[in-house]
Parts: sequence; C-alpha cells; structure tokens
Amino acid sequence: MKTNPGRFFEDYRMGEVIRHAVPRTVSGGERALYHALYPARGALYSSDAFARSCGLAQSPLDDLIAFHTVFGKTVPDVSLNAVANLGYAEGRWLRPVWPGDSLRAQSEVIGLKENSNGRSGVVWVRTRGLNQHDETVLEYVRWVMVRKRRETPAPAPVVPALKPAVEAADLVVPAGLDFSGYDFALAGERHRWGDYAVGERIDHVDGVTIEEAEHMLATRLWQNTAKVHFDATHREDGRRLIYGGHVISLARALSFNGLANAQMMVALNAGAHANPCFAGDTLRAWSEVLDRAGTGAPGVGALRLRLVAVKDGAAPFALRGEDGKYAPPVLLDLDYWALVPL
Amino acid sequence: MKTNPGRFFEDYRMGEVIRHAVPRTVSGGERALYHALYPARGALYSSDAFARSCGLAQSPLDDLIAFHTVFGKTVPDVSLNAVANLGYAEGRWLRPVWPGDSLRAQSEVIGLKENSNGRSGVVWVRTRGLNQHDETVLEYVRWVMVRKRRETPAPAPVVPALKPAVEAADLVVPAGLDFSGYDFALAGERHRWGDYAVGERIDHVDGVTIEEAEHMLATRLWQNTAKVHFDATHREDGRRLIYGGHVISLARALSFNGLANAQMMVALNAGAHANPCFAGDTLRAWSEVLDRAGTGAPGVGALRLRLVAVKDGAAPFALRGEDGKYAPPVLLDLDYWALVPL
Amino acid sequence: MKTNPGRFFEDYRMGEVIRHAVPRTVSGGERALYHALYPARGALYSSDAFARSCGLAQSPLDDLIAFHTVFGKTVPDVSLNAVANLGYAEGRWLRPVWPGDSLRAQSEVIGLKENSNGRSGVVWVRTRGLNQHDETVLEYVRWVMVRKRRETPAPAPVVPALKPAVEAADLVVPAGLDFSGYDFALAGERHRWGDYAVGERIDHVDGVTIEEAEHMLATRLWQNTAKVHFDATHREDGRRLIYGGHVISLARALSFNGLANAQMMVALNAGAHANPCFAGDTLRAWSEVLDRAGTGAPGVGALRLRLVAVKDGAAPFALRGEDGKYAPPVLLDLDYWALVPL
Repeated sequence: MKTNPGRFFEDYRMGEVIRHAVPRTVSGGERALYHALYPARGALYSSDAFARSCGLAQSPLDDLIAFHTVFGKTVPDVSLNAVANLGYAEGRWLRPVWPGDSLRAQSEVIGLKENSNGRSGVVWVRTRGLNQHDETVLEYVRWVMVRKRRETPAPAPVVPALKPAVEAADLVVPAGLDFSGYDFALAGERHRWGDYAVGERIDHVDGVTIEEAEHMLATRLWQNTAKVHFDATHREDGRRLIYGGHVISLARALSFNGLANAQMMVALNAGAHANPCFAGDTLRAWSEVLDRAGTGAPGVGALRLRLVAVKDGAAPFALRGEDGKYAPPVLLDLDYWALVPL
Repeated sequence: MKTNPGRFFEDYRMGEVIRHAVPRTVSGGERALYHALYPARGALYSSDAFARSCGLAQSPLDDLIAFHTVFGKTVPDVSLNAVANLGYAEGRWLRPVWPGDSLRAQSEVIGLKENSNGRSGVVWVRTRGLNQHDETVLEYVRWVMVRKRRETPAPAPVVPALKPAVEAADLVVPAGLDFSGYDFALAGERHRWGDYAVGERIDHVDGVTIEEAEHMLATRLWQNTAKVHFDATHREDGRRLIYGGHVISLARALSFNGLANAQMMVALNAGAHANPCFAGDTLRAWSEVLDRAGTGAPGVGALRLRLVAVKDGAAPFALRGEDGKYAPPVLLDLDYWALVPL
Repeated sequence: MKTNPGRFFEDYRMGEVIRHAVPRTVSGGERALYHALYPARGALYSSDAFARSCGLAQSPLDDLIAFHTVFGKTVPDVSLNAVANLGYAEGRWLRPVWPGDSLRAQSEVIGLKENSNGRSGVVWVRTRGLNQHDETVLEYVRWVMVRKRRETPAPAPVVPALKPAVEAADLVVPAGLDFSGYDFALAGERHRWGDYAVGERIDHVDGVTIEEAEHMLATRLWQNTAKVHFDATHREDGRRLIYGGHVISLARALSFNGLANAQMMVALNAGAHANPCFAGDTLRAWSEVLDRAGTGAPGVGALRLRLVAVKDGAAPFALRGEDGKYAPPVLLDLDYWALVPL
C-alpha cells in the first residue's frame, strides 16, 4: 500500500527520533494570512519599523506560526491515529522565525505507557522545530493517546518527569530584544509589566464567530491534514472538528484587548483542549496573571498567563465546574510565558 | 480596567492629534490576499513588469490596501463607539505604498458638534497614513457620529469647511508615472481618457455573492476589529454587518469591466455607505463620469468618477428614490478621481 | 459599450494570436495562499532548503499556480461565451516559475469548426504563458465550444492533429534538477519511481468538503472572473459552479498521500471536467499509473499518471459507466506526466 496509515501505539520505540516530512519555507505570505485569519495586532509581529525600535532586525513571524508549522509536520507521524491530544509541557521558543526561514521538525519518543484495556496507549514526544541552519527555534513535549492495531505485548511503561511549568530562569529572550524605548502608544495600550498583578483576571471582551472556510484555510496553511478537520463525512454527526491550534491563535489574538503588550510567547507551560469547537461557535477569551518574573534583557519582563477560550454564553471567567472538570463552554486552557515591557 | 472602552464624544478635543496604534508592514502577502478577496485586475497593481513600463520601480500595493490599512488603525480610537459613519472628504493618495513599507496612522480632530439630543455628537478627523520615512502616503477627512458616555457640557461647535471635491490642480501624480507607452491590450481595454464623456454611465455587469468568511478575512487583514463585523451575537438579528470598505473594494474591482484603465485612485472626494451589506448579498456596480481633467504627467489624464454599489435586484443605475434618499438596494456612493491614459 | 462582451465563435480567425490582458507578478503571497487553499505538501514546492538539495536555486511556485494564472488570463478572450470546456492536450511546463516572476499569456487560434446546428462552434487555441524575459514557462492546447452571436458563414473547418499524449522524449526537466540525493524521509514517502507499476491504482484516501468562500478565493486569485463561479443569481438553481481548476488542484494535493514523490508536473496530456462540482461536495481522488519513462537528468524518472477526482459516495476507483460515459460522481479525469526520484 502506498498511502500512509499513520503509526499505531505498537509502532513507537523509546528513544527513537522521528524526522517529520515536508519542510516548509515561511514568508510574508504566511504573515499576511495570519493577519487575515486571526485578529492579531501585536505591534512587534505587525511592523518591521516597530520591531527595529525593539532591537530586532525586522518583524519576526508570529510565534504561533512557528508552533503551528512545526505541529502540523508531526501530525502524520504522531496523531493520525490519536484518540486524544492529552497535553503539552516544557514548550519554549528559542529563536525568532524570520521571513524566508525554512523549518523542519523532529520528535523524540520520551514516554510510552499502554492503557489497561490493551487497546491503546499514551505516547510522549519531545518535538523540535529547526531552521535551515539546524538551530532549534521551538521545542515542546506533547502526549497523545494512540490506538493499537494489533495485539502486542505492552512495553515497559515509561512516564517522563515533566516540569509543571517552565522556570523563569529557563526563558530565552531573543538576542537583541530591548524594550527600554518601547512605544506604548503605537503598541496600543499603556499597561506595563508592573501594572499586572498575580491573580488579576482580564475579560478580553471581543468575540469571533467561526466559519468552516476559515478554520480549514488556517489548518491547511500549517499543512495539518488530519481528516477530521476537512471531511464532513468523517464524523457521524457531519461536523468538522476545528483544529485546537486554531482556537489557540484566535484566543491569543483576542487577548490583545487587555494584553497588547504581552508581545512575545516564550514558553508553553501547559495546555488543554477542554472541549471540541465547531463552525458557528462564537469564541471569546479571558486571561489570568499566574506569575511575574524579570529577565536579563533591557526593559523586558515576563508574565506567566493563563489564556482561556470559551464559547458564547459561558459564565464570566468560566473554567471548571464543581466536579473539577472543565465547564462545557470552555474550549481551551493554556498556560504560557510572554515578554512584556517594564 | 485593562481593555479599551473606545473614545466617547466628550473624550475628543479640538486640535488634538491621536497617534493610532499597531503600525503595519505590508508586502506581497497582502497583495496576493487582495487578489483573492477582490476580483482586482488593474494591470499596474498586478504586474511589476507592467508597472515598470509605466515609469514606476515596481508594482505598488493597491491604493485601497493603503486606505484600508490606515482606516483600520483608526477604528479603536475613532469608531468603536460610533453610531454612524457619516462621510469622507478631501482624501488624497500622495505616494504609492510599496511592498515592505511600514504604515502608521494619525488623526487630528478638526471638528466637533454635539447633537441637540445631548446624547451624541459628530467628530471630524483628518487622518494621515505615514510610511517608515515619515512621508504621508494618504490623507482624508472622515466624520462619524459618536455616543456620549456622561453628561458633559457641549463644546463650542466647530464644523470644518470641507471642499465638495478635491480640485484637479491638487491631484498628486506619483513621481515618474508615464502613460505615454501604455499597453492597452495588456491592460485589458482599449478605452482612453478621451473616450469617456462627462455624464456617461457604465454598468459593470458582473456580480459577486458575498460569504461571511470572505468579508471577515478582509476586515481582519486591515486589523479592523470592530465587533459588529465578526461577532454574530452582537446584533439582535444575529447578522454580521459587512465593513463598508469591503464594499468599496468589491465595487472598485468590479468596475474593471468598463474602467480597466482607471488605474490609480488619487483622490476620494466623498463617500456614503448608503445601506448595510450582509453575507448572501450579491453585489453589482455602476459608474458615472463626473468630470475630466489633465495632469502635468506624460500621457496621464484624470477622471472624476462616481462608483455605486448595489444589491442584486436593483433597477439599472439605481441611486436615489423620489424622496431624495438612497434607494434601499444601494450600498455605496463613492466619488473619486482616477488616473487614466490619454 | 465599454464593457467586454467576450468573443463569439465568429470573432476567431485561424492563426490569429491573442495577447491576453492583465499580466501578473506572483510571489510568496501566492505560494502561502496556495497552501491555505489546497492540502499541498510537495516538499519541492514547500521548502527552499529542500529545493536546493534537489539542485534548484529555490523553491519554485507550484506548477498549478503557473497553470491557473495563465488559464485565468485567457478567460475573457476564450471562455466568456463558452458553452463547454472540451479538452486539453500537448501541455508542457517548460521552465519553473519563481517568486517575483511576472507572467503574461497569449493564445494562437489553431482550429475552428462550426457545429452543424449553426449556433455554435469549437475553437482550439494553443496558449503560452511567458515570463518577464519572454521565455515560455508553460504551453497547452485547449478547445472549447463557443456560441455564435450572429448568423455568419461557417469558416472552413480546421481540426488540429493533436498528440494523444506528450511523448516522454519531449518532457522538459528543469535545468539543474538532480534527485540523486533526494531525501525520501523529508519528502514524506519512501516510494521511488521503480516502486510504481504500470496499471497500479492508488486510492488517496483523504477527503475535503468544499466551501463557497474557498473556491471563490482561489478562482479570484487566478484572476479568473467568469460569472458562473461568483454570482449566485447567474444559474437558475442559485448555485455557483466551481472552477474546474480548483478541482484539479484539490485532487493533485490529495494525491500526495501515495504520490508524495511525484514532485513536478511536466506535461498535461489530456483532461476532462467530467461533471460539475459545487460547494458542499466532499472531494476524493485516486490515481492510476499509465506509463513510466526515464529522463536524462540525474536520479529523475517520469511517471504518466491518471488523476481522477470523485465526489463522496463514488464506488472505489469509479470512472466510467457501462455506457462508456463518466459515472455521475466523477468530477475530473486528468492525464499528466510527473517527475519522480529513481
């Protein structure tokens, strides 16, 4: 058979490194599309002139362009037969991605644990995105539940020890970044790092009603070709499941209203796609400040933020029910570090 | 509160200059998207080779890309609490925008007049778009009706004296533009400046049925994030209002069929968004030649044109009813100057 | 009348060369949009780094970008009054199209045959796409049935002798192409030229449900403005017919799954748009290996492939019914040559 059946649980080996297919050059075209697909307004990712005023050579591509591009490459090898996308950890952006960079991705299997039912198991991979200079631009751990195809003996279970969050000392600030002359008026809001208190919650107010064409354009752009996003005949209910990363980008873009100066994502501490999202849903977002830290870079502080995406109709700051489970209208619970001017 | 509530009528002061947020670098990505979103076929904006044959260094970005980008930046400061977009005047394109240019925008408050009900007022702003060299690429006056939030004394009314149209002598022809070797076959039509008579009307024949995904992609591309365009829960009728600029670009692109050689927009004399436009509407357009003028540039004439967008089912050349009001299917009445080969 | 009525059968003359309007510069923006519109994953068209490892200076634009761009230019002159798109033959890609290239198109009338009803006729044109150096990048023959507007004497019938397929010896391999160091893992599949047998059929498995917004964005991107694709009021049934080229690109992109290494299209032998396609259709594809040939280039072989697009619900490998006609769910039957690593 010539087509790719995807990997099943028994096809993974501890320590193996999977080189993912289809490297990708990203450019101003991907940037323009990102701005058409998401209400992204971060000045650093919008204007070369603004980026230069912050010590960068030009405007990098959105950090989530890098994430989605790398993630998309892993789909045929990691999640084609996945039952569930269970979590993210230890994600760090290590270098900006510039227009013209060519990205590729590889994943190391760092954990395997068969489920007690013998029909599936959990696979942990540490994925790296590399540029044309073989520099790592992004790394993260992701774990998924994958079906078994055949009856095979369970491998020795290995569950990797993962940090609950990236430590502030491990955050990487892009070379040259300098927020000491940061233009708050041009950036859109006056709030500095010091204006955000741990525990503070922000309702980002705006909402976006999602169309089928939009999430498919976005998901294809990242060369993520999982059937369930594109083929209305795949699910019994005739609906196309929206790629979780589309929800991440929409929520992050909506968070501009209140977090306009949370410019760069530098770490992905954790993330849960709490409930499925479908076309017709109107998505809103809120954030909570989880932690604050300094960095060695001039004028640059870091905020650890929870970003929650909800469907229209959710209670204010909806998150979990009394049973501890995510409330039904909650779509995403993301924990990340961002760089913010002091 | 960290989020932007927008400005209310009492927040504006005569003479103040508002620097709008989120500068933007535009490139070949925005150009490609413009061609995907609108049936734009102007040869000067489509081909570097054609633009060079007309004396330009390369193909500039569509004049309406410049307009929408600048307009989008003003939304959070000017129209977030606007009840109505009342008019445009004295608009001029002063320099082409090239791929790679970084645009920002600022507006000066040039008029204020509280309404007699004391609950809203009209604000006039003169908006300028500037490139990374601080050169003005575009300027226009726009006035909007804005709500008041609090009871405050009415300011002394100032209504600016605005020209009914940009005078031909004030049109700015881009440096180097030369239509003396213009290739009419490559441009798509044989009609020269002299072939158009004042009073002549042209039915542009073609129609486009609009989808939700399209107008949202377009409006986001210009970083215009007014809720009413994106959030289906915002209006009581569950409909998303289409950004008036989307109608301008669609109508202008449709006008290629009959005005293929009306290459460059150089002035915006007036404009009215006569009726709201929604997804599902099929849009058509017609034009009327209002005036003709020479320019000092070789082979370059100017036509003053009325561009009218209507919904399917409108009578031929529909404009106003017997009561003098715009007929219900009329969406747009735009008055502009364009450069045309002699 | 200023608008273009299109050409009717009696407007064509044997041997005339029509220079088509609106040249077009294509860039990274068009490439990004192509990846958003189609699930395209060919590594050579995705990554500059991969293209360089294959001996090219950078990643060319997808061969079908070149085809659609050239095709779109011919629409106002060739198919505005066409009743049916009857066939393609003798298509060859002669040079890659690079980002920044400016394309234009011209067609020579090589055949004319009035139908016996005297109300329409068949026009054959040989179309060439040229770049800014006046080099031909693409050529193909296409024939369409065009209506007559007036009663005119039938021209002497000329039916050109067309080859049933481009001969392998006439395939043009891009200068420098070298697959001897081809990275099969990065490209996504391990199958070499020698792994494909004549007669082998491949079900490409994946399906895509098509939205109105998507096919209109695509079709506009190629500046193909035939009414029937955009105006829901044009057909009596209120449906917008999807541009046949959209189906070609979707099917070709889906064929990655099983033909990931069929990197470059070098010839279009024949093609039929078997049945109309509409939004809501879920499109699938299958391929058949028709022939194999060597080329003089290092590591480069050629496969002649039949690519068939079908609607959801089609029988496996559906093509023709017992009456010899295409089965109703068959949308496209395309015959092309592709370059594949040995």
